[in-house]
Amino acid sequence: MTPEQIRTTLDAYVDALAQADRNAWVELFAPDAVQIDPVGTPANVGRDAIRAFWDRAMGLADTIVFDVHHLHVCGDEAAMVFTGTVRLGDGGMVFEAVDIIEFDDAGQITQLRAYWDAGAMRPLG
Amino acid sequence: MTPEQIRTTLDAYVDALAQADRNAWVELFAPDAVQIDPVGTPANVGRDAIRAFWDRAMGLADTIVFDVHHLHVCGDEAAMVFTGTVRLGDGGMVFEAVDIIEFDDAGQITQLRAYWDAGAMRPLG
Repeated sequence: MTPEQIRTTLDAYVDALAQADRNAWVELFAPDAVQIDPVGTPANVGRDAIRAFWDRAMGLADTIVFDVHHLHVCGDEAAMVFTGTVRLGDGGMVFEAVDIIEFDDAGQITQLRAYWDAGAMRPLG
Repeated sequence: MTPEQIRTTLDAYVDALAQADRNAWVELFAPDAVQIDPVGTPANVGRDAIRAFWDRAMGLADTIVFDVHHLHVCGDEAAMVFTGTVRLGDGGMVFEAVDIIEFDDAGQITQLRAYWDAGAMRPLG
């Protein structure tokens, strides 16, 4: 994995969220990937569990836009610092977060750990 | 560990760096802690190795100031998003980074993983 490949995968990750494209998003994960969002809650292991997380946590949103402030690529890992904006009907919320993401040689995500504080979410607008 | 205890430990961590207090900094780590800075380089395991990292990487700086933008506490972990400013003589450098830090029940740091990109460092001023 080159830093460019990692950046390309994460661009696709952000695009899939913005377009609410569940399949494109799930397929960026390796079949046996581990996803934890937020850290401190149980892990979702494998694409079926990750797809179920989408349905539970993200499927209700109209759009989820990540405004990426920094992307630090270190070896086969990356730290993505972003502001997330979730829109739902006339409202929504904004949150600050960090995703720590690990990749395999094929460029798929093997682990994603999301750090954010539900108490620090703020209403949109 | 409560979020408040984690915040107190990380305040002490940032203070120790700002004051160039190696002993205070090293003692925030558990005796068998794992420190990786940046991710992708070999781990420093245990206080002796972590102290040697200080001497190698930070001991030459006059001051190292962390301007913390976000601290996300999730379970017994935290993600600290900051701008680091290293001053050395009349010059120095500035970098953006994320530290992912894990704690034990006594509030000591058991693992610290630093994400930053040497290529994105910029000269101070």
